[in-house]
Amino acid sequence: MHTIDLARHLNRVRETCPLVHNITNHVAMNTMANVLLALGASPAMAHAREEVEEFAALAGALTLNIGTLSPDWVDAMDAAARAANEAGTPWVLDPVAVGATTLRRKAGARLLALSPTVVRGNASEIMALAEQGGGGQGVDSTDTTEAAERAAVDLARRTGAVIAVTGETDLVTDGERLARVAGGHALMPRVTTLGCALTGVVGAHLAVAEDPFEACVAALAGYAVAGSIAGESARGPGSFAVAFLDALHALDTDTLTARARLEITHAR
Amino acid sequence: MHTIDLARHLNRVRETCPLVHNITNHVAMNTMANVLLALGASPAMAHAREEVEEFAALAGALTLNIGTLSPDWVDAMDAAARAANEAGTPWVLDPVAVGATTLRRKAGARLLALSPTVVRGNASEIMALAEQGGGGQGVDSTDTTEAAERAAVDLARRTGAVIAVTGETDLVTDGERLARVAGGHALMPRVTTLGCALTGVVGAHLAVAEDPFEACVAALAGYAVAGSIAGESARGPGSFAVAFLDALHALDTDTLTARARLEITHAR
Amino acid sequence: MHTIDLARHLNRVRETCPLVHNITNHVAMNTMANVLLALGASPAMAHAREEVEEFAALAGALTLNIGTLSPDWVDAMDAAARAANEAGTPWVLDPVAVGATTLRRKAGARLLALSPTVVRGNASEIMALAEQGGGGQGVDSTDTTEAAERAAVDLARRTGAVIAVTGETDLVTDGERLARVAGGHALMPRVTTLGCALTGVVGAHLAVAEDPFEACVAALAGYAVAGSIAGESARGPGSFAVAFLDALHALDTDTLTARARLEITHAR
Repeated sequence: MHTIDLARHLNRVRETCPLVHNITNHVAMNTMANVLLALGASPAMAHAREEVEEFAALAGALTLNIGTLSPDWVDAMDAAARAANEAGTPWVLDPVAVGATTLRRKAGARLLALSPTVVRGNASEIMALAEQGGGGQGVDSTDTTEAAERAAVDLARRTGAVIAVTGETDLVTDGERLARVAGGHALMPRVTTLGCALTGVVGAHLAVAEDPFEACVAALAGYAVAGSIAGESARGPGSFAVAFLDALHALDTDTLTARARLEITHAR
Repeated sequence: MHTIDLARHLNRVRETCPLVHNITNHVAMNTMANVLLALGASPAMAHAREEVEEFAALAGALTLNIGTLSPDWVDAMDAAARAANEAGTPWVLDPVAVGATTLRRKAGARLLALSPTVVRGNASEIMALAEQGGGGQGVDSTDTTEAAERAAVDLARRTGAVIAVTGETDLVTDGERLARVAGGHALMPRVTTLGCALTGVVGAHLAVAEDPFEACVAALAGYAVAGSIAGESARGPGSFAVAFLDALHALDTDTLTARARLEITHAR
Repeated sequence: MHTIDLARHLNRVRETCPLVHNITNHVAMNTMANVLLALGASPAMAHAREEVEEFAALAGALTLNIGTLSPDWVDAMDAAARAANEAGTPWVLDPVAVGATTLRRKAGARLLALSPTVVRGNASEIMALAEQGGGGQGVDSTDTTEAAERAAVDLARRTGAVIAVTGETDLVTDGERLARVAGGHALMPRVTTLGCALTGVVGAHLAVAEDPFEACVAALAGYAVAGSIAGESARGPGSFAVAFLDALHALDTDTLTARARLEITHAR
């Protein structure tokens, strides 16, 4: 049905080097910054209520992640999202473990109501966000991506956001189109915060593209290819993490186009 | 005197994939999450007073670490420990640099009074906690494990906790039994927060075992074997950290049993 | 004009293993701790207002970094700097993205007024601090080191601090002397927080030297040599980060002296 010019998306990120402002969890910050630098973007981490609006206005994209959250950080995320909306800056919501506690359910609902451009989570998180029911205990998904398809399409239609459900096969939908992105590697979920860092990569792609659905798919496709390449030399999760940054940095557009495993259909 | 079925402990962690809830310091979070994932457990980091009780109740074990502490985090740790006690969830106290400042001495004493299942620290920290005197300035031990033996046994008898003193040779005691675990590698103290991350590994083992002393010894023995293996290929602390995660992930029960250097006697 | 005995500076760090107290940003903490351990120093991270004065007094040096800042952290930094001044402890200011927001401009000015021993930043940060004008949006420099020379010399003369502007070629000045340090590797700015971690390395050298200018130049020279060595084997930013820690740990004084690219002149 559709095709996406993946090379063009990656090239635009690297040529533009967009500033991506992230309010993310303490576990992910370092990984996310390294992933964005390896990709060719410029990360900024800032969470103080007093400065997030200025950062969100400077940045090409904003990402919000509710892992290791506290009430004052949620207030700052709220303010940053409103500033992004006012400036026309695209932003991504990463609802880490949103089903686990009352604090997270409330934070997820509050931020979702501010109209994120993209929501990226694992199957359990997207299902919890869509249905405010079920959901995993922690940050590791207990549901499959396929089980989340219905929830993702409904959530996209209800909110207007692009929904990305990442897992063994990723799923992206804007309520009309539905993409499946395969690839990656079995070690990826054994390295902490690679999912959180992917949210930053989605942000970098949103900053330089017109179509959030295409940007999101391009981000996921590149990430999966880099993961596959890293998996070829990794001896375990430690060397995988190292090889992944090297692969993302070295990723050329020919390899990206040749190895991306992508299928786009109509959402049902 | 005793023997411990190390293979059984490791297998149970991997089969169960316990959720370990950690309130740990900012430096350690990423390392600890990666170590727990490499081991085969599921880490959750959450520190907000508003949600720690829910997480502590969901988790198979809780770990509390007072590095980079602040008063509100200590309040959250206190609440999490009480919730764990109520739910019958085992928990570990990691008293980082407890002798260095008034804030830490108070936090250490307050949390110790809540009856941790295990306390894990270096020699300086255990001696400072036991005697509220001496102790190192920072997070690196200035005392030997042997010097801490008396303090550890006394502390175990006084508190009912299993005390683990880690260093070149680790020491574990419940006041009656005393284990010495050798192995590891000289580069381990040159990689930050490997000790903090070990506290998470102790938590993962506690979550799936009946006897906290055995669980703690099994955790330390596996960690030391993985450290020895990593040391064989490391060229310095950077490559050691990578090789360590690979080794922990790849550790099989035959290697564990064959290479563990373990001695269990009566505590004097 | 001058020569600096680089070997002596490095040896003194390793023989003394100084405790360096850092209040740094969340992204940098883990990297900085690993860099200080690889160098042979002892890092301590502590940010609570209730304990920073005790830590600053225990430590051989203090470093303050305004990345991921919040108002309460700035208060703690202020208190730590005053305690360091009272104890005669040298301290370093790292004004991350100081030009980006009002909060950062205020924090930068407030801490600069407390007379840091050294200020280390990239060209955009030093220019923003000197002129309270221009300056990059985020944490990645948009100006060259050369463009910052005038600002650095003026700032040194006005404040009495040693100013270090790091980039492709580093520049250090105390207002009278001016050193240029070349070396490093093109991948260094593609690994997050290596600049922040360098601030810790400057702190470790200050802790064991009489002349802050010499200490700062020695710190930068060793860092650049380790970067060059790491670049020889790196395949991308992931493997660079690993190789860098290995190289810093393995750095011997002969290699340091032979490979350092250093030029010292009069400041104009």
